[in-house]
Amino acid sequence: MVAQRTIALDAMGGDHGPGVVVPGAAISRTRHPAMNFIFYGDKAAIAAQLDQHAELAASSRIVHTDTVIAMDAKPSQALRRGKGSSMWEAIQAVKNGEAHVAVSAGNTGALMAMSKLILRPMAAIERPAIAALWPTINSESIVLDVGANIGADARQLCDFALMGAAMARVLFHLENPTVGLLNVGVEEIKGDEEVRQAHAWLKQTTGLPLDYRGFIEGDQIGQGIVDVVVVEGFAGNIALKTAEGTARQIGQYLKDAMRRTWLSKAGAVLARGGFKVLRHKMDPRRVNGGTFLGLNGIAIKSHGGTDPLGFASAVDLGYEMAQTGLIERLAADLEAFHHRIGQNAAE
Amino acid sequence: MVAQRTIALDAMGGDHGPGVVVPGAAISRTRHPAMNFIFYGDKAAIAAQLDQHAELAASSRIVHTDTVIAMDAKPSQALRRGKGSSMWEAIQAVKNGEAHVAVSAGNTGALMAMSKLILRPMAAIERPAIAALWPTINSESIVLDVGANIGADARQLCDFALMGAAMARVLFHLENPTVGLLNVGVEEIKGDEEVRQAHAWLKQTTGLPLDYRGFIEGDQIGQGIVDVVVVEGFAGNIALKTAEGTARQIGQYLKDAMRRTWLSKAGAVLARGGFKVLRHKMDPRRVNGGTFLGLNGIAIKSHGGTDPLGFASAVDLGYEMAQTGLIERLAADLEAFHHRIGQNAAE
Repeated sequence: MVAQRTIALDAMGGDHGPGVVVPGAAISRTRHPAMNFIFYGDKAAIAAQLDQHAELAASSRIVHTDTVIAMDAKPSQALRRGKGSSMWEAIQAVKNGEAHVAVSAGNTGALMAMSKLILRPMAAIERPAIAALWPTINSESIVLDVGANIGADARQLCDFALMGAAMARVLFHLENPTVGLLNVGVEEIKGDEEVRQAHAWLKQTTGLPLDYRGFIEGDQIGQGIVDVVVVEGFAGNIALKTAEGTARQIGQYLKDAMRRTWLSKAGAVLARGGFKVLRHKMDPRRVNGGTFLGLNGIAIKSHGGTDPLGFASAVDLGYEMAQTGLIERLAADLEAFHHRIGQNAAE
Repeated sequence: MVAQRTIALDAMGGDHGPGVVVPGAAISRTRHPAMNFIFYGDKAAIAAQLDQHAELAASSRIVHTDTVIAMDAKPSQALRRGKGSSMWEAIQAVKNGEAHVAVSAGNTGALMAMSKLILRPMAAIERPAIAALWPTINSESIVLDVGANIGADARQLCDFALMGAAMARVLFHLENPTVGLLNVGVEEIKGDEEVRQAHAWLKQTTGLPLDYRGFIEGDQIGQGIVDVVVVEGFAGNIALKTAEGTARQIGQYLKDAMRRTWLSKAGAVLARGGFKVLRHKMDPRRVNGGTFLGLNGIAIKSHGGTDPLGFASAVDLGYEMAQTGLIERLAADLEAFHHRIGQNAAE
């Protein structure tokens, strides 16, 4: 029997609140029946939505909250005024052990700040990271950090590698995920010193629970040549956004090209089965959810403007991440790694 | 009458040497007849190619060189052993005033190192940059730095803005190009300090020969919302490579989708006119050439593995960049800007 997982949902987060969060949870639950939900937010609004999803309602409960974190609130404001909000209480549920994971489509900065404050960084971690799922030719890879911090030193990059590998073990069911360090290929540049030090450590340290493959370049992410791509948060965020923008741009090119002549229009009609497959492949809702890693608990960020199908992907991700032992196993990995680096440095 | 421009070509650079460089120059010359060429490299090999291009031959001369910079040579090696090589002599021709611009498909690191050594950074510039043309929904934008250096401080970012604007004036014939500073959008991150300082300077300083539009995010590059995108070289290189990789990935998706059923295959045949337009739009050979900016002379880097059509794009770019006054005008812009920043700091 599959163990039940409880997901804490910030029902008020995102552009559409319960109108997307509740039907999104319903879609995800049809895929993963072993899920319970706690919805945090306006009781009447959530209940009205749950009325339309009887099966979901049977495995859900509502915790009423009065305050909501505005989508444009600054993290500092959110921390000062956030207590008792739907976002705060959803994260608190993870802290208290009532839920395995929290999912919110709310303000990223506020969610990150609250998660850090409530869940606290793991003892061995200096900086948490945001991990994104990146669609590749073959399947998906994990890319981190995509924006929790700007810059990362060598040790933090190594921590990201271990955190990403732990996530890959849970999500992709791999015992020894492959890991690459994102770097620039122009030979003039020898690579940032921190990146090179991280490379040396990952290469030298034996017994790591990952298969380190060395440097990779930006054009190799989408080829899926490694399961986990490690990069500091500024370049990681820019890479992620640039890939999204390029996909949209090419989608536009394709649309324009097919509308040019009646012949290409007719061809596009005949090939609509193929275009449907392509649209599905390129649908940003299929892969939605940034995972905050490095805290004593998991929080997932969904895109704020997504629809129920997109929110369901974030809940799916939450369910996968809500596997027992992830945090404990990661803590042990990190401790062993830092111990070995310490030994190397002392030698 | 259009003034003649002389282009110095490293005929031995790239994976195919004169076999690509000479026919590439021939293609470009049909588009820009007011061009002369000096080919540097193995005289016999170049002459054999020129024999097949009579018109090109009439406006070309060959300077024989014995040594070639290996594609995998380290920049330091290239500097030590490079004198007298085809790459060295092509750059030297710009220095001596024999040519307006040098184009090479050779080793990037070596080309950058030699260009810096021979042409020297402009007096006001701490760091040169590599500028790339980035295809957008509307047309093209200039993105820099895409890999000359890792990291950039606030002043260097401002210099990049002025250099990119100068290039946009020449290439796009705009008097007041729009400029954006690439940053991350996650609110938790307030942006790197250097990026924020550059933002403040560009915003405050009046009378700049550019229209500063503030921060932009990675997904906005391809939308072409600004003419010039400024970013430090690590993130810039990763963004460029990631966009290239994403375009290839989606091209693969599209191919697979059109091969799925006989109906989609038939549709693809009917729509082949549309696909041809799309292929042209996405053809990496259309936009080929990184421009080294910030030196007392212009050097252009072509992709090493490109074919004659791709090399012709790099020569086209060289021709456009070989406009008189670019360096002088840029030097004046930089001096005025640094003077104004100095005044602000003193106030």
